[in-house]
Amino acid sequence: MRQALHHLHVPTKGKGLVEITRDVSSWLSGQRISTGLLTLFCRHTSASLLIQENADPDVRADLYAFFEGIAPEGRDLYIHATEGLDDMPAHIRTALTQVQLAIPVESGRMVLGTWQGVYVFEHRRAPHRREIVLHLLGE
Amino acid sequence: MRQALHHLHVPTKGKGLVEITRDVSSWLSGQRISTGLLTLFCRHTSASLLIQENADPDVRADLYAFFEGIAPEGRDLYIHATEGLDDMPAHIRTALTQVQLAIPVESGRMVLGTWQGVYVFEHRRAPHRREIVLHLLGE
Amino acid sequence: MRQALHHLHVPTKGKGLVEITRDVSSWLSGQRISTGLLTLFCRHTSASLLIQENADPDVRADLYAFFEGIAPEGRDLYIHATEGLDDMPAHIRTALTQVQLAIPVESGRMVLGTWQGVYVFEHRRAPHRREIVLHLLGE
Repeated sequence: MRQALHHLHVPTKGKGLVEITRDVSSWLSGQRISTGLLTLFCRHTSASLLIQENADPDVRADLYAFFEGIAPEGRDLYIHATEGLDDMPAHIRTALTQVQLAIPVESGRMVLGTWQGVYVFEHRRAPHRREIVLHLLGE
Repeated sequence: MRQALHHLHVPTKGKGLVEITRDVSSWLSGQRISTGLLTLFCRHTSASLLIQENADPDVRADLYAFFEGIAPEGRDLYIHATEGLDDMPAHIRTALTQVQLAIPVESGRMVLGTWQGVYVFEHRRAPHRREIVLHLLGE
Repeated sequence: MRQALHHLHVPTKGKGLVEITRDVSSWLSGQRISTGLLTLFCRHTSASLLIQENADPDVRADLYAFFEGIAPEGRDLYIHATEGLDDMPAHIRTALTQVQLAIPVESGRMVLGTWQGVYVFEHRRAPHRREIVLHLLGE
């Protein structure tokens, strides 16, 4: 049984979903682990991780619109406003999704379904460089 | 330290929660792992995993109603509609819950609380056969 | 590769977020694991786990208010009311957040970002003693 750790840096362009499936797969395939457990951890409180449909881009547009609606930006909506009107909605959207994902590895690959992609969900207006820790355990 | 992988197929009857605690426990007990970590992974984007109360069925009815309300079906509500009016709400409800669960194993059993059950949450109207990957690591 | 298990008991004072970062770190540092995977599991259906900003307390106040609003208490809102008006909203808020967290360990510490803290989110009005199982795997 072996372990491997990696810090993946993901540039975002402001609010929206950035697919990282290929980056994660690529790192994974270099580890030569056949069976194991891969954990992704997002080191931020205003960006999160999501596994979602990777086929129709309209799905991401609708997801984006849903989260804009459920935790909208707005003066007077939140107490915490010192870091910008988009910051508190970002914390809420992070709470409603995940900052960590555990994905089993089989035959050297993540066991994602046919239509599943792994995404970083940026919740801030400004572009950021997000850090995702990848932890792998297996043999 | 050993690993085990299993693909559990769960038939659903359309929207609603299907308890899989017994199926998972049953597989687990056959692995003879005393202490370890069990990971469940749902290979779909319109069904998810949830740990919820397994006592009063009214809890599941209320949960169901809540998710129907928060991400309702409806013409003109979403851009993505080619796969049916229930598809985009299914993706949103999956995003709001989880597709993966990590559960520690102690004395050969999942450390679930007294009232916790493990459920597949089917978000589509039609019955499906959902695939859940179980990964176990321990000794 | 070694494993360790611990049951952490967290007293809550009714609804709200209780930070447990220090309790978890303290247990972790005694395990002498340099690289590994830490899993936290909440054995309840009306309290959950959350990683959130640990700087401005207003963030927790806003988060609290958001969850009060999205799944409010109220007579006639839910079928399940036998355990109090705050019970069904508690189950929903638990479903919207998480009962488990997987956090990689690097150089003997959780890889939390600068502003990330680990919280138990109590969803019931009354104080409770919540049980969180910590599972550690690594070397």
